[in-house]
Amino acid sequence: MSAQAPVIILAEPQLGENIGSAARAMLNFGLTELRIAAPRDGWPNPAAEPLAAGAFDEGVEVTAFESVEAACADIGYLVAATARPRGMEKPVTNASGAVEWLQGQARKTAVMFGNEAQGLSNNHVALCDAIMTYPVNKDFASLNLAQAVIVFAHAWGEMQGQAGRFEGANAGVGEPASREDLIGMFEHFEYELDRAGYFYPPDKTPLMSRNLRNAFVRGQWTTQEVRTFRGAIKALALGRGKARITRED
Amino acid sequence: MSAQAPVIILAEPQLGENIGSAARAMLNFGLTELRIAAPRDGWPNPAAEPLAAGAFDEGVEVTAFESVEAACADIGYLVAATARPRGMEKPVTNASGAVEWLQGQARKTAVMFGNEAQGLSNNHVALCDAIMTYPVNKDFASLNLAQAVIVFAHAWGEMQGQAGRFEGANAGVGEPASREDLIGMFEHFEYELDRAGYFYPPDKTPLMSRNLRNAFVRGQWTTQEVRTFRGAIKALALGRGKARITRED
Repeated sequence: MSAQAPVIILAEPQLGENIGSAARAMLNFGLTELRIAAPRDGWPNPAAEPLAAGAFDEGVEVTAFESVEAACADIGYLVAATARPRGMEKPVTNASGAVEWLQGQARKTAVMFGNEAQGLSNNHVALCDAIMTYPVNKDFASLNLAQAVIVFAHAWGEMQGQAGRFEGANAGVGEPASREDLIGMFEHFEYELDRAGYFYPPDKTPLMSRNLRNAFVRGQWTTQEVRTFRGAIKALALGRGKARITRED
Repeated sequence: MSAQAPVIILAEPQLGENIGSAARAMLNFGLTELRIAAPRDGWPNPAAEPLAAGAFDEGVEVTAFESVEAACADIGYLVAATARPRGMEKPVTNASGAVEWLQGQARKTAVMFGNEAQGLSNNHVALCDAIMTYPVNKDFASLNLAQAVIVFAHAWGEMQGQAGRFEGANAGVGEPASREDLIGMFEHFEYELDRAGYFYPPDKTPLMSRNLRNAFVRGQWTTQEVRTFRGAIKALALGRGKARITRED
């Protein structure tokens, strides 16, 4: 997906610190357009700088507006972030659902967050096309403003990443050992254990050996790890203090 | 969903404010067990209170530990939150993938976050079963600590809303080893390897040790497997032909 990234609108935010934190959260996931509508303490606000951790210099552009209406005037598709569905006749979704709906738009889009004290007013929600709500703990439902922003920003980043940028499990960290490598390692280990008298009583040998093999197979080792472990077996088997010499050969 | 909620571990956190914010973020999505390992400014820390917004009184229980190792001693399945996959041999996933993996465990689980300055050290990541990483902006990758926590907490809350009960991965293979068992096994193994002159040159010791630990952690061993392997180490270390005698003791 290469949908245009949504604007983040903070409606009547109170604390500069939260504006700074929200900007940092946005840039963490590649969102760069921040609008602040009727900020209580004006704009610019020096309290925002430390919490932004450089976000204003490194990509987030902030524009202040006199009102929420002005801040969303040119927005084609607008999502309201609220703690509860509100019982309004609007489609309601979660964070990843909102990202899907936003990505489906050819128009300019935005997500609007309410202020620290009251969240979005019903009048502001009424301006929006859809409601995004998070599955919060009903008994402790109030998120910090910047926390609410990063949950959405992460969902946005997550969806962008699925185009193939994300690497799979164990990605790029080494060539997996072949079954042959593993068997060679087991035989080496068991040979030395046998010489050390480990397999006792003898009739338990097959079971003990199988248990060890099972444990090792489960780790899905790489060829390098097999080599490392064989080096360790060799060192132990040669006895204390002797390994350094023989590592030369 | 009725999987046991994961513990959140903060490894060597610096600012009380972030501990408070993290607690609020946790409780927003129903997570209640917070552990802080070796907090720089001690614990309790009055700076945490205002940012917690009541979370400590309304459900989040905090326990402080002297070290990261102690904080994760009883954890069966441990996920490291890091900004990058690290090139270690561990499964890597995103937030929702981590939630799935955590829900699949019958054991006690945790997600560990590093501190504000450096994130998790490689040594701490080596103790973990898996890595969780977010699709961050490569040019602005550093999340605030509590922001990192809420992204995971939200993913957890999101998944609780969905139906279906996971059966535990590795179900029925025996009691999983605790982190304490594993650490004890590593220390035993490394002690004997060191006596055998395996760690050479000496400045490579931390790396060699970490590579071995990573390989073993990946197997998610049981307590029985840990005991078996410790028996094997002991046998090899005692030298050829001597193990049978000392197994009597």
